[in-house]
Amino acid sequence: MPSFCARLKPLLIGMMPVNNLAEMAAALKKASQVALFSHVSPDGDCIGSMLAIGIALRKMGKEVYYYNPDPVPRNLAFLPEAALVCEYLPTPWPGTLLFVDCADLARVKLKADDLPSSASVLNLDHHISNEHFGNINFIDPQASASGEIAFFLISELGVEISQEIATNLYTAIVTDTGSFQYSNTTAQTHRLIADLILKDIDFGNIHHHVFDQKPLSQVRLLQHALASLEILAGGQLAVMTLALEDFKASGAEESLTEGLVNHARTVAGVEVAVLLREITLSEVRAGLRSNLWLNVNEVASKFGGGGHKRAAGCTLYQPLLAAKESLIEAIEEALCRGRNG
Amino acid sequence: MPSFCARLKPLLIGMMPVNNLAEMAAALKKASQVALFSHVSPDGDCIGSMLAIGIALRKMGKEVYYYNPDPVPRNLAFLPEAALVCEYLPTPWPGTLLFVDCADLARVKLKADDLPSSASVLNLDHHISNEHFGNINFIDPQASASGEIAFFLISELGVEISQEIATNLYTAIVTDTGSFQYSNTTAQTHRLIADLILKDIDFGNIHHHVFDQKPLSQVRLLQHALASLEILAGGQLAVMTLALEDFKASGAEESLTEGLVNHARTVAGVEVAVLLREITLSEVRAGLRSNLWLNVNEVASKFGGGGHKRAAGCTLYQPLLAAKESLIEAIEEALCRGRNG
Repeated sequence: MPSFCARLKPLLIGMMPVNNLAEMAAALKKASQVALFSHVSPDGDCIGSMLAIGIALRKMGKEVYYYNPDPVPRNLAFLPEAALVCEYLPTPWPGTLLFVDCADLARVKLKADDLPSSASVLNLDHHISNEHFGNINFIDPQASASGEIAFFLISELGVEISQEIATNLYTAIVTDTGSFQYSNTTAQTHRLIADLILKDIDFGNIHHHVFDQKPLSQVRLLQHALASLEILAGGQLAVMTLALEDFKASGAEESLTEGLVNHARTVAGVEVAVLLREITLSEVRAGLRSNLWLNVNEVASKFGGGGHKRAAGCTLYQPLLAAKESLIEAIEEALCRGRNG
Repeated sequence: MPSFCARLKPLLIGMMPVNNLAEMAAALKKASQVALFSHVSPDGDCIGSMLAIGIALRKMGKEVYYYNPDPVPRNLAFLPEAALVCEYLPTPWPGTLLFVDCADLARVKLKADDLPSSASVLNLDHHISNEHFGNINFIDPQASASGEIAFFLISELGVEISQEIATNLYTAIVTDTGSFQYSNTTAQTHRLIADLILKDIDFGNIHHHVFDQKPLSQVRLLQHALASLEILAGGQLAVMTLALEDFKASGAEESLTEGLVNHARTVAGVEVAVLLREITLSEVRAGLRSNLWLNVNEVASKFGGGGHKRAAGCTLYQPLLAAKESLIEAIEEALCRGRNG
């Protein structure tokens, strides 16, 4: 059995790390026990990809452990083998550790020192920011989801894609692509999905479980957010606020604000949308989204936040109304500078 | 030139009509002028499929006319050649008439007598209810959208799929499949989409145009609908109402209620959702949706309406509150009878 003990930096050809799916598959074939890791605040991609690989490994007779620091979200609990995901691992840890969809060890609340020095560390991911912390890394930023890479790994392992594996992989990909609408979706994505559909999965049921199970409190929260909707800057800016009393009245936690900002973003003519959430009387979190050109990452960074060009966030240590005014001013300035500003 | 003058009934082999894409392509190749028809209340599939075929025919040097009895919806105005769609045709009509996505002639506000007896009538559609009114019919109920069939017709015509054609076909398919989530989506659908993406279309921009341009009044209307949301029958039934005053306050027309019922349907635990719209003080329209098992077609038919198992509608000639009570009673009865009732 080859030694993977030393933490090797990935070989670089130009700027691209050497990825070797065959090497990763070979290491898994030789393993008898494998622990699979997925990241905190788990989503469909990390859970679906992890379970798909785990089911394949179990078909090969391996002993498999699924690890996540957080509980599996309720809308993913229907996934085959989701009930086996644990917040702990047996001691001692299995000799082979496969990290799925984790850009770095902090995503699983670990440090390099936490890993047994004898462990074989495998790292499968699609985030361009991945730190290549494994002994064997397979990182493909062109993949829409880790689920795409998991598909190829399972094929490399020689395991036939079963309906259970396909259900997990479909979920991984459909969630990370926003049902194939985000720009990370490629022709390869659709071809893989075609192959998965031929495994007789019930993708209508998957959509229902994943996307259609909103807590009532979240729907109530949306109502409060919409009631606050203001259209500014000649129709280009949409602002919504959720005060502490809105959370109380709807019975919703702050995590349920996820996605609500899109109701403002999709109003005709709007270029940038903001949702401000009052955390305390002097702390406000803001989520910013833009449609076509405005760089919200730049706006958020003015307040110590950041993110991407079309989606960013920041925290303002001000009362809600003052925070709203600060953000509106910054966004109106950015809108005035215009596309070439 | 073969004569297509006689209105031939389709040949039947068993119960399946003979479809002949090659014959349809041959008729188009011989034509010099072609009128393309798409149905009233146009959607992405009929407009996108029609324009894709029209662009292909124009590449072949044909004179092409796009007909629709209604204006192209604003969210489809970005489609290549959408500006050429007209509510009239030149007199006399072109000798070749191609109906796209129209189950019968009433869908284009025509009767059989309206068609010139000398015209060659081609009928391309995916609705199982299609009446095979053409001289040449290509009807494939397995296709998720007429856009899938249009793809094959264009290939049969020997025209390369350009970016403009691909943009129209992608829009046709993405709209009729609800972004690939409806059960009409197949492996073939995803394979065609993969081919279209390789034509360098900007599908993110398509999604933005098609799905993300909601009138502000519609968002306001959603707020009013959510404010009325009631969860009944132990969490299985979600009811929303929009009174005349809600339409007035939001500035929205009744047509903008399309899709709002899904906000009630997607509440966790809900099996059936209803949106009641007050049309007059004694007339109420109801839209019903179910998730997994309840047959809303049966419920709607009790009030003289109908539709499908999971989506139906009816009109009640009662004041809003009384209509709501009538519907709730009928739905609770159906829920009580249960899945096997």
